[in-house]
Amino acid sequence: MSSDVKFDWLRTMRTGVPEVVFGEGKSYAQLSDICLSAIERKQRILMTRVSCEKAAALCAGWPASVTWHEPSRTIIVDSSSSSSSNEPPATPIVGIVAAGTSDHALVSEIEQCLLFLGVQSRSYMDVGVAGLWRLIDVADELDAHPLNIAVAGMEGALFSVLAGLVKGPVIAVPSSVGYGVSAGGHAALNCALSSCAPGIAVVNIDNGFGAAALAVKMLGVAAASQQK
Amino acid sequence: MSSDVKFDWLRTMRTGVPEVVFGEGKSYAQLSDICLSAIERKQRILMTRVSCEKAAALCAGWPASVTWHEPSRTIIVDSSSSSSSNEPPATPIVGIVAAGTSDHALVSEIEQCLLFLGVQSRSYMDVGVAGLWRLIDVADELDAHPLNIAVAGMEGALFSVLAGLVKGPVIAVPSSVGYGVSAGGHAALNCALSSCAPGIAVVNIDNGFGAAALAVKMLGVAAASQQK
Amino acid sequence: MSSDVKFDWLRTMRTGVPEVVFGEGKSYAQLSDICLSAIERKQRILMTRVSCEKAAALCAGWPASVTWHEPSRTIIVDSSSSSSSNEPPATPIVGIVAAGTSDHALVSEIEQCLLFLGVQSRSYMDVGVAGLWRLIDVADELDAHPLNIAVAGMEGALFSVLAGLVKGPVIAVPSSVGYGVSAGGHAALNCALSSCAPGIAVVNIDNGFGAAALAVKMLGVAAASQQK
Amino acid sequence: MSSDVKFDWLRTMRTGVPEVVFGEGKSYAQLSDICLSAIERKQRILMTRVSCEKAAALCAGWPASVTWHEPSRTIIVDSSSSSSSNEPPATPIVGIVAAGTSDHALVSEIEQCLLFLGVQSRSYMDVGVAGLWRLIDVADELDAHPLNIAVAGMEGALFSVLAGLVKGPVIAVPSSVGYGVSAGGHAALNCALSSCAPGIAVVNIDNGFGAAALAVKMLGVAAASQQK
Amino acid sequence: MSSDVKFDWLRTMRTGVPEVVFGEGKSYAQLSDICLSAIERKQRILMTRVSCEKAAALCAGWPASVTWHEPSRTIIVDSSSSSSSNEPPATPIVGIVAAGTSDHALVSEIEQCLLFLGVQSRSYMDVGVAGLWRLIDVADELDAHPLNIAVAGMEGALFSVLAGLVKGPVIAVPSSVGYGVSAGGHAALNCALSSCAPGIAVVNIDNGFGAAALAVKMLGVAAASQQK
Amino acid sequence: MSSDVKFDWLRTMRTGVPEVVFGEGKSYAQLSDICLSAIERKQRILMTRVSCEKAAALCAGWPASVTWHEPSRTIIVDSSSSSSSNEPPATPIVGIVAAGTSDHALVSEIEQCLLFLGVQSRSYMDVGVAGLWRLIDVADELDAHPLNIAVAGMEGALFSVLAGLVKGPVIAVPSSVGYGVSAGGHAALNCALSSCAPGIAVVNIDNGFGAAALAVKMLGVAAASQQK
Amino acid sequence: MSSDVKFDWLRTMRTGVPEVVFGEGKSYAQLSDICLSAIERKQRILMTRVSCEKAAALCAGWPASVTWHEPSRTIIVDSSSSSSSNEPPATPIVGIVAAGTSDHALVSEIEQCLLFLGVQSRSYMDVGVAGLWRLIDVADELDAHPLNIAVAGMEGALFSVLAGLVKGPVIAVPSSVGYGVSAGGHAALNCALSSCAPGIAVVNIDNGFGAAALAVKMLGVAAASQQK
Amino acid sequence: MSSDVKFDWLRTMRTGVPEVVFGEGKSYAQLSDICLSAIERKQRILMTRVSCEKAAALCAGWPASVTWHEPSRTIIVDSSSSSSSNEPPATPIVGIVAAGTSDHALVSEIEQCLLFLGVQSRSYMDVGVAGLWRLIDVADELDAHPLNIAVAGMEGALFSVLAGLVKGPVIAVPSSVGYGVSAGGHAALNCALSSCAPGIAVVNIDNGFGAAALAVKMLGVAAASQQK
Repeated sequence: MSSDVKFDWLRTMRTGVPEVVFGEGKSYAQLSDICLSAIERKQRILMTRVSCEKAAALCAGWPASVTWHEPSRTIIVDSSSSSSSNEPPATPIVGIVAAGTSDHALVSEIEQCLLFLGVQSRSYMDVGVAGLWRLIDVADELDAHPLNIAVAGMEGALFSVLAGLVKGPVIAVPSSVGYGVSAGGHAALNCALSSCAPGIAVVNIDNGFGAAALAVKMLGVAAASQQK
Repeated sequence: MSSDVKFDWLRTMRTGVPEVVFGEGKSYAQLSDICLSAIERKQRILMTRVSCEKAAALCAGWPASVTWHEPSRTIIVDSSSSSSSNEPPATPIVGIVAAGTSDHALVSEIEQCLLFLGVQSRSYMDVGVAGLWRLIDVADELDAHPLNIAVAGMEGALFSVLAGLVKGPVIAVPSSVGYGVSAGGHAALNCALSSCAPGIAVVNIDNGFGAAALAVKMLGVAAASQQK
Repeated sequence: MSSDVKFDWLRTMRTGVPEVVFGEGKSYAQLSDICLSAIERKQRILMTRVSCEKAAALCAGWPASVTWHEPSRTIIVDSSSSSSSNEPPATPIVGIVAAGTSDHALVSEIEQCLLFLGVQSRSYMDVGVAGLWRLIDVADELDAHPLNIAVAGMEGALFSVLAGLVKGPVIAVPSSVGYGVSAGGHAALNCALSSCAPGIAVVNIDNGFGAAALAVKMLGVAAASQQK
Repeated sequence: MSSDVKFDWLRTMRTGVPEVVFGEGKSYAQLSDICLSAIERKQRILMTRVSCEKAAALCAGWPASVTWHEPSRTIIVDSSSSSSSNEPPATPIVGIVAAGTSDHALVSEIEQCLLFLGVQSRSYMDVGVAGLWRLIDVADELDAHPLNIAVAGMEGALFSVLAGLVKGPVIAVPSSVGYGVSAGGHAALNCALSSCAPGIAVVNIDNGFGAAALAVKMLGVAAASQQK
Repeated sequence: MSSDVKFDWLRTMRTGVPEVVFGEGKSYAQLSDICLSAIERKQRILMTRVSCEKAAALCAGWPASVTWHEPSRTIIVDSSSSSSSNEPPATPIVGIVAAGTSDHALVSEIEQCLLFLGVQSRSYMDVGVAGLWRLIDVADELDAHPLNIAVAGMEGALFSVLAGLVKGPVIAVPSSVGYGVSAGGHAALNCALSSCAPGIAVVNIDNGFGAAALAVKMLGVAAASQQK
Repeated sequence: MSSDVKFDWLRTMRTGVPEVVFGEGKSYAQLSDICLSAIERKQRILMTRVSCEKAAALCAGWPASVTWHEPSRTIIVDSSSSSSSNEPPATPIVGIVAAGTSDHALVSEIEQCLLFLGVQSRSYMDVGVAGLWRLIDVADELDAHPLNIAVAGMEGALFSVLAGLVKGPVIAVPSSVGYGVSAGGHAALNCALSSCAPGIAVVNIDNGFGAAALAVKMLGVAAASQQK
Repeated sequence: MSSDVKFDWLRTMRTGVPEVVFGEGKSYAQLSDICLSAIERKQRILMTRVSCEKAAALCAGWPASVTWHEPSRTIIVDSSSSSSSNEPPATPIVGIVAAGTSDHALVSEIEQCLLFLGVQSRSYMDVGVAGLWRLIDVADELDAHPLNIAVAGMEGALFSVLAGLVKGPVIAVPSSVGYGVSAGGHAALNCALSSCAPGIAVVNIDNGFGAAALAVKMLGVAAASQQK
Repeated sequence: MSSDVKFDWLRTMRTGVPEVVFGEGKSYAQLSDICLSAIERKQRILMTRVSCEKAAALCAGWPASVTWHEPSRTIIVDSSSSSSSNEPPATPIVGIVAAGTSDHALVSEIEQCLLFLGVQSRSYMDVGVAGLWRLIDVADELDAHPLNIAVAGMEGALFSVLAGLVKGPVIAVPSSVGYGVSAGGHAALNCALSSCAPGIAVVNIDNGFGAAALAVKMLGVAAASQQK
């Protein structure tokens, strides 16, 4: 078995979204190999779900190029001298809505992924449906975003209610927060998929990067459909 | 094996709720035996989930005593000369809220069971959360009921939203309406159980009688706790 | 219980997508009530999953206003004199890709829903991954669509492969076609949700209307994000 | 993302039950923020499922205001000078029945939640159905409570048997104690939902606070239905 | 493929229990072949789960040898002139306890299988735990049987309660009667397996013959252990 | 909540099997309370699934009365001066058959439970069906036992094969050993329940004590049926 | 949507196995289109899982070219004048072993698929493990086949036992025959996957064609590995 | 209970594949016993899934005979003076294809098992379907192998695509890598079983040894079928 990881350096060109490294289940040696390759190629990459320990070691190895963002558990590897090409737009495009305090880490991962992909977002925290007025209070602001990403564990009722309040699509990210019948996020996932409200795009449980990538592709539909 | 069905004629006295006959899975011969016993004892009973064919045969057999209510698929057997003792109270006590058109039969079963148990109800149909304003429009009316019963299939987001809008308890009846991941009512059930909103009492999928009986017992808590 | 169905006539204005009637599980009486209301209001509506028998009866009742499209099992109720406002655009915007012959009905439902919502589509049938070249042969055509909808039962590998071939988002519609471990569409659903390829938006099993509505909302993102 | 947790300080007024903080899955920083806010507002709050370590740190931080109750893993934050308004009533209103020794922690959580909500309870431990006489011996005492809360893991037969012995409603709290087919509490949950005995209100597995809140709302039905 | 069914005519000798034919899923041709073989060999056999139609045809074919018992859906094929060797013992050995009216067919199948295997039984119907006194009233009679077979669908609490009341083993036969979470008998099965009461032997859902065969083998343990 | 554990000291008299303490999930304080009570009453008890740490502490507390058997993770508490009444019979009655090396602990627990209940057993290890001859070599020895207990994880084919080789009943104990689809023991459990071979009595996954108690009750059937 | 079915006429050349048409879920019109195409191209094809009604209509349409094999529910379309090229080899290569009478249709489908692919087989029926000697009696014959296909529903113990008796690989085809926990074939599938015996290749439940195609590919490995 | 592990030393002769020791779930004492037996018999054996700690202890015990291969977590016990009889063939016969970096350990286990069984392999890493061209680039090389083993977690689309590209059979090894709906490898397993592409042989999740043994048996089919 060849010992090096084959990285898909040309993916951006082909699919419009750079390959982001999913850190969970990868050894330190594997992550370290990827860092080295990226630095040698002067390619900017994002790693998600990196544990605290592995992140510290990677930062220690390449202090100038590796940056650790703890709340989101993400790492950016960037050895280029300027980061000007990635300056986010002034206006937040995507709204991120979360139901509970326990979803902060997942929301943070989505924010970082969107930033990495060049899209600014704005987060609305703790607006679950059990206290409906908190959600209704921001309904107009949410509706002003062309699209929203919703994060919810437990019963996931937020997805349906939000989709009924905004004109744009809603990307539903079920979170694995929960216990009993909602342990693992399956109740929230099924709630998202079963919703009567049209316009909900579902991704896998805890799939923060997937939601961000889908959002970027949705925003790209605009440009593409203009040219028709 | 003795061929007759043992019926628990003394249940009312003991538990406060008369035994209601669950018609599904019982043969015509078994239902007919129960009817005959009830008529002989001049006892008033309710049968739920009776198929159209069996109901017609039972009505034909005892036209004076057996009444078929088609929308709810229930039968009342009553051979007493007067039904005055069961006259429902003037004011509807229990609110029944349903999300979709396909839940009408289940709502109707709950109404009939409540009536049989001596409680008047009022139904609010098609107030699912995807069109949130229909629900909010009636929020004050719903909050005026000491308790509400909610019926929802698909994703069951109604349970959480409703429980956040009213002060009394909400009895959640998941309905088996649905397809894909919500087929059989399990997504709605899990949504009800996972809800972040306090005060939701869950019963089995499609268990209309169970919801009605629980409501009656909840109303009885009032009297019981007065005497303390 | 009030006997009439409350229809959400103002939904289009609020969410950008008119409420489409899900016919499965509704009685003929309920569908007939909805038809009558739509005709009285001169409102154009779509009904999906209408059985052959109910469709025939509705067509017989209002021959001038009700049209049945058999392959997709949909009905359009339209009592307006002209249908000019719904003339579809000349160019097909959305690509629809299906893996197997057994998915034709679902593809047809998606086409009809898109048409009803004002969007023209083009379908690419029987391009499953087991015969990979059929899919690769049309890869450039598919990539030219700003977004594609993929329909697949059995193992659902089409979703991942397609998402790796096109720049736009892919809406995955798992179909319930299958047997053994893929019975009911759950294997295909989980495949769609688990995909390593970014840009997949998943909807419920067999949810053709949901896919069409999501596509329309995605196309709307373009306009919305232009105005920023 | 704003870094502070939005707490629903007005919930009591709106729904009759104050928001109780679910401690599991929250970081120490988040719990600490909530404590600080509560103390500043002189608001009394309850936190459940707080780990031993986090509890010790919170108590050390605000020794005068934070009290840790170890058997139930709950914390009360109370900075008011007098606690007179929360003095529990002299008579225990709610009965709590548990089947096994392993359920003590869950029973203790329910007791503390009820106390926090102003309701006194009495617990009956180790009265599982395998030794039926222990349960029958206390049947009259249990029936004297207007409502009972039952806690059971493994097969959950206690719920059915208890509901057949008392006139008031029974709130069933399946516990996650168990192994093999009863691991996680799902067998007990399904037993509660399937019960033939009328009057069982089911909450999520291990949801002690949910049971307490539901009990308080049920007791409130009394007052509400009096005013009709 | 050879077209004849290989029947295990020597099984009785080897395992102490004759092979009983499970009729469900077998074609009329297959059942008819088996009948013919049995008659030719003058071997007495039992067929379970035979549909009404197939039974009628088999009876018509061999009126002297084939007997249909409708309540249990079983057929006995017996072409011997005397049936004296199978005369059941005078005293009922095995008790059969059932919780609900819908379990009558399954109870009847168990009775017939036991009779065929030479064991007399006595059935106690409709003694579910929701009306506990009906069960307690017959507790002494049940305890007098060396072993009892319990049949229950829905939540299956009967298994635990019964096992706590009798000294002998209890064979638990979950029945597929039920709806919602108890549909298919899985809740009752898990209840039986999870029971805290010792001495419960579980068989597959609806497996009436399996329960009878196990009972016969248990009775055989007596003789075998005597010889030690 | 009263802090002491209610122990069912009279169970032996009532059901023929003394209550054995299931140690998993009980705190050291709870186990210690039970020990103390048993010693005070001079009652001999068995505790299963006791962790190494708790066992050491209990042994240190009452060195004269508490004995730890490590392979089976069981503890016997016995403060009586003589243990003569529990001397096991000379001949092993029950056969225990196990498929794999990983099942040794479970087999050992069954042996200890049987001994505690006064029954001698003999174990046949590593006789899984993949090497069929090892099983067939001991078939006659196994058939000489009036009953056998079989332990198997993974696919559980041992249950069916064994039941086809012996005349007595087989108690099937699925073990949680396994990975992938057999993780947790569910594949082995379903194999046991689905077996075509008559005479299999199934208990919960890993339920060693349950198997032993059932065996003792089966042996008791002999005596009971003699007296008829 | 184009109305014709795209058939993969070149598949044989590419993958070594011609595409076989899965008839279930395809309309008569679709099957009829495929027949017509095959006849026009003088291509020989096999259709599996064709219902009796559709088969009769297809045979009536092209009596000279379409042949219906009822036990296996397969159709062969062959308009070539000679079928000499498909004459099966004299010696049966593949053994097919089945546990129960209810699996005859599936065995027959496998035989027909193998024949169509040019491979002769021999079937061994009703050799389930509950009567182990029937299997052992043919063990040498089975071991003489380079590979065997095993068909089993219920608990699927046959797979493990067989794989321990033969040197060649065993293809396991779980069958959906069964009830209770084995309903749908999932218990048998998990048994096959969990087997401790090496050399078992598992295919989907009821996937007769898949087993035949895999067998043919396995036989092809011989030729391919010779050339190395 | 006898304390020694019975090892099946004659298995090679009987089934063509030596018994490989599955290390997970076995104690150090058990593994150590097996090592000692193998060394005494001068028999060469392989142990899989051995933890780092146990491996170090075994190596320390018999440094001359025990070799630890860390990436695959396997141990070879070999006390023979020469290893010439196990020299692998010069040409790699089996191709191993893996979709993701996280599958390296499983691929390595398969390589080591094949080597132990005398078969050389070649691995193709990181060729998942999301970057289809990486797979197509090596399609001809893969097709040159008489058989390929594919390893994939997440959605498992690799199995279908690969089977459509090569003429030989594909052994599918689902890996437990994944999260959300693909946690534990069940989505990949179901994808493999549901595949429309013929020629896929599925083994249990993470079953590296099973895949290697099946491959060896498939290669043996060649020789066996030559002799016909």
